[in-house]
Amino acid sequence: MAVYTQLTNEAIAGLIETHYALGTLAFAVGIAQGVENTNYLIAVEDAHGVERKYILTLYEKRTDTAELPFFLGLMQHLAARGVNCPQPIVRRDGAVLSEIAGRKAALVSFLQGKSRSVLRNVHAAQVGETLAVLHRAAEDFSGSRANRLSLAGWQALYAPMAARLDGIQPGLGELVERELAFLQCHWPPETELPRGIIHADLFPDNVFFSGDTVSGVIDFYFACSDFLAYDLAVTVNAWCFEQGRECNITRLRQMIKYYNRGRPLSPPEKQVFPVLLRGAAMRFLLTRAHDWLHHTPGALVTPKDPLEYAARLRFHQQAGAELYGM
Amino acid sequence: MAVYTQLTNEAIAGLIETHYALGTLAFAVGIAQGVENTNYLIAVEDAHGVERKYILTLYEKRTDTAELPFFLGLMQHLAARGVNCPQPIVRRDGAVLSEIAGRKAALVSFLQGKSRSVLRNVHAAQVGETLAVLHRAAEDFSGSRANRLSLAGWQALYAPMAARLDGIQPGLGELVERELAFLQCHWPPETELPRGIIHADLFPDNVFFSGDTVSGVIDFYFACSDFLAYDLAVTVNAWCFEQGRECNITRLRQMIKYYNRGRPLSPPEKQVFPVLLRGAAMRFLLTRAHDWLHHTPGALVTPKDPLEYAARLRFHQQAGAELYGM
Repeated sequence: MAVYTQLTNEAIAGLIETHYALGTLAFAVGIAQGVENTNYLIAVEDAHGVERKYILTLYEKRTDTAELPFFLGLMQHLAARGVNCPQPIVRRDGAVLSEIAGRKAALVSFLQGKSRSVLRNVHAAQVGETLAVLHRAAEDFSGSRANRLSLAGWQALYAPMAARLDGIQPGLGELVERELAFLQCHWPPETELPRGIIHADLFPDNVFFSGDTVSGVIDFYFACSDFLAYDLAVTVNAWCFEQGRECNITRLRQMIKYYNRGRPLSPPEKQVFPVLLRGAAMRFLLTRAHDWLHHTPGALVTPKDPLEYAARLRFHQQAGAELYGM
Repeated sequence: MAVYTQLTNEAIAGLIETHYALGTLAFAVGIAQGVENTNYLIAVEDAHGVERKYILTLYEKRTDTAELPFFLGLMQHLAARGVNCPQPIVRRDGAVLSEIAGRKAALVSFLQGKSRSVLRNVHAAQVGETLAVLHRAAEDFSGSRANRLSLAGWQALYAPMAARLDGIQPGLGELVERELAFLQCHWPPETELPRGIIHADLFPDNVFFSGDTVSGVIDFYFACSDFLAYDLAVTVNAWCFEQGRECNITRLRQMIKYYNRGRPLSPPEKQVFPVLLRGAAMRFLLTRAHDWLHHTPGALVTPKDPLEYAARLRFHQQAGAELYGM
């Protein structure tokens, strides 16, 4: 969470005033948002003295710039369908991507709002409904992007750190190895469930609320093509467990119920949902374990606890479809 | 340059809405500004729907909280005298300091504007004039704070790293040792020159411009009581050397000339100014060398190059009062 690339005000003003038909730069501040990329909150004053805010994102080394048209195109598509998400600003020359300080960059509208960290069931219900709206709105989006963090990706993440997982918690290596074998056997084939564009990272910090109502969704940089119900599984895991790691069953059922209102789950989706929940727990367990093991002491980004997701996985191993109310 | 203390939106909203009579929190973003403390840019909407921006600063471990009333009082004093600087917001209970997440915190007005990194002589002239205005505006401020980064402080900084300076550049240890001996002999006694409150860190990133005119000054956390002309020496060193480290004599003379318009330098100040320039170079050479030697590889804060200030020091050792146009 930091500014990796320092830009001068002159450089930002040069980019904005030359390539975008917005006005003159009023101010720019580097913000601690996003782990991978550099983000500036900027304000631009138009010819009538009206100030508007934007986010200027510089894509750092770990971002595959070939995928940027997918992410930015998706945000444009969703915004055009009324989803309140950051909207990429088109340059004077019709392009969406810029280049600054040797990095690809994009300017998007600043989404004003507040995420919640104290969650109640009503918020999970709202988020379930919002996720269905997202899935519907993306239905006619022409882009696609493989999910590299699905089954094959989990195996690839696991292999090099297999021997070190027990260093995080004794028994963690065996838990993961056995679960990967289970998922290998039970993960649904591609054609079995409805697929589409999924957000894949709809955590509480990516959802803004106005009061108790969802007012916006941000951070589409994990979006990809996958089972729609898998996105719901990721979202359930992210919202429906308490600090003490217990599952809040009422909240989980609410979220699924409200998702269903926007896009009814089919019988095969309901049937395999327990497996999707286990896979969704595995995905975050593995990336968190990876970041945990590769963390540089003294670096400012604090890695998230992989054991939170080991607990979710263990919960879903025990639970059954009835518990989820499906 | 990072957010050391993560706050939830709920925590920020709780602080703002309970303790300040401003309105409701519209958004908050952690910003990469300031090396020592955590800063959030926040927006508050008042009862009429008008949005205003503020900076919420959390003072981290290295800040001596006993000194905060001095810094905040100085900003209040200067703002009341028309200086465009961040203005501390007084709480409902009359206090200026808050507490959040175990840290002392203050809310100040957000100073909209842009610092310059491409400097021209006209900017240095403006800054010279602004520094004199600051010195005048602080004349009747009742607070005082010893400058721990003056002569005695330099010696204390130097001693523990004496043996390691040559690792930065061969000969650097001897340069510093000899210069400290020189400064010990030639630094003016306290009573010899006009004293007052100095900014002590008026670098380009702390001055905002509107076009070519100074529109604001920020970051008063090095302010202290010292020779007023020493502040000019610090500022000359910060603004009047080119990227290639050469002194821009025209710019230096402009800055001094415009400072003089606001507060004429006395004959003793002019006479000892070459020594003050050497001391001002020493102060930043030593703190930069300290940060350079104590830098954690992988940490996100990039230390500034101490050799830039070794070059300034060597320049001032050769130059004479005539060169400065005094």
